[in-house]
Amino acid sequence: MARETKRVGIVGLGLIGGSLGLDLQANGWDVQGFVHRSVTAERAKERGLVSDVSTDPACLAGCDLVILALPIPLLLHPEPSLLEALPAEAVVTDVGSVKQPVLEAWRDRHPRFVASHPMAGTALAGVEAGIKGLFRGRPWIATPDPKTDASALAVVQSLALSLGSHWLTAAAAQHDQAVALISHMPVLVSAALLRAVGDERDPEIRRLALVLASSGFADTTRVGGGNPDLGVAMASTNRGALLRSLAAYRWSLEQLEDAVLQENWPQLQIELKRTQALRPGFLETPDGVSD
Amino acid sequence: MARETKRVGIVGLGLIGGSLGLDLQANGWDVQGFVHRSVTAERAKERGLVSDVSTDPACLAGCDLVILALPIPLLLHPEPSLLEALPAEAVVTDVGSVKQPVLEAWRDRHPRFVASHPMAGTALAGVEAGIKGLFRGRPWIATPDPKTDASALAVVQSLALSLGSHWLTAAAAQHDQAVALISHMPVLVSAALLRAVGDERDPEIRRLALVLASSGFADTTRVGGGNPDLGVAMASTNRGALLRSLAAYRWSLEQLEDAVLQENWPQLQIELKRTQALRPGFLETPDGVSD
Repeated sequence: MARETKRVGIVGLGLIGGSLGLDLQANGWDVQGFVHRSVTAERAKERGLVSDVSTDPACLAGCDLVILALPIPLLLHPEPSLLEALPAEAVVTDVGSVKQPVLEAWRDRHPRFVASHPMAGTALAGVEAGIKGLFRGRPWIATPDPKTDASALAVVQSLALSLGSHWLTAAAAQHDQAVALISHMPVLVSAALLRAVGDERDPEIRRLALVLASSGFADTTRVGGGNPDLGVAMASTNRGALLRSLAAYRWSLEQLEDAVLQENWPQLQIELKRTQALRPGFLETPDGVSD
Repeated sequence: MARETKRVGIVGLGLIGGSLGLDLQANGWDVQGFVHRSVTAERAKERGLVSDVSTDPACLAGCDLVILALPIPLLLHPEPSLLEALPAEAVVTDVGSVKQPVLEAWRDRHPRFVASHPMAGTALAGVEAGIKGLFRGRPWIATPDPKTDASALAVVQSLALSLGSHWLTAAAAQHDQAVALISHMPVLVSAALLRAVGDERDPEIRRLALVLASSGFADTTRVGGGNPDLGVAMASTNRGALLRSLAAYRWSLEQLEDAVLQENWPQLQIELKRTQALRPGFLETPDGVSD
């Protein structure tokens, strides 16, 4: 049996990396942070996100596990100095919200790479964002392919379970399509709503819309008013699945619009009863998905 | 000067009517409720929503002000017994979320009718739903037309201000278009999202979507998973404005989709920066709209 993994490297200390650092230290790990800017390193140390932190990738030497908590563009185009510094024996995993491009970028770059995605977040980002307990009760999905090392996958599974996450695995293509449906496409659906109201030409109607908008409008537009960089990263790295989701969405909206156009109120009633019944299934992590 | 208005009749004691009853009693009014079912009357009395309550419209005799807090279909097709019972000298107002059809139904039915719309709500309905302070800090919009009695309008304004609402007036057509944009159209936009995910044919993707959906999806779909009767009432009574809003929405979504299709990421970035900047304007009642 291999010795117990106890030294973890975290590359990037934003919301996900910082939150991992807090929880893993609490669980007894020695947490080595690696960031680009010394000001981030200092603040991460002040906040206690890591046991130690450096701006030199050589700090990752001796890590049994390295978690790449980088923004998608940096994850897909890793710096050569980072690749050279990754210990060949370490398990390497990521936390990106898109899995097919990550697998394509990494499966031949490290023999013990595991593509994974903890579904957790808040509205915040950066070194101030990390919080304790972010992953508890949230899904953590891995997308192994035939080349994935089974023992490395088991290490990532242990990591996820130790943080209180629900563990599941799926094919990368199906993961990316599901995430397009419930996360990436809603960003554009929601942004289009803000855009449509913002483009209203009658200044009096625009004034009234601003005054009358209530919590329902605030909720529906929350993800569409989010971080533009994140939106572009999602759209550009999951473009095919996003376009398929948008096509399904347009068709769906047309059915509702058609009922209004035809004044087919019994049909609209059936449709809205169906969506009312559908929603509760999305509100909680179903039991039984954790191992 | 007319004597101070002190006896108010409230027709219907659901969320809006019941909340009005609680606040108006607290403000020293004698509140007479009128409901259809005796079981509702009993519960309204138990909850203290009114000073007195009856299932006989004759109870409205002697009221200086009558507030019609009825569902839109009943408001647009009032029962003859209610019309007969309304005191000719009383100020009569409504609380419906659509104003043009209400004005058309009521402007020739009562000489002192004022069309108005307090923009307040919760997810609840019925006699259990009424709460104190529902209207505080919320907009209350009246849509007078040339036939509206100016002194009656002043009475409704005093009512709104006494409950802590922000008072404003607008043309009914512009009100209805604004409400379509920020309330009625978002219901269908949000419902179409639930429908699109519910229609996913791959059972594994559907399973993953259910598990992975997070608070962002919950927020975006909240209004689309709401009361179907309310959705149908909104759509059928504000159909023209809703269809115009949906056309603007479709065009708006197409612009975003086109940027993804063309892989024009700088353009998508500009669009999402704009929607990010637009949203805060909708989150709070702007200062200066109250009198």
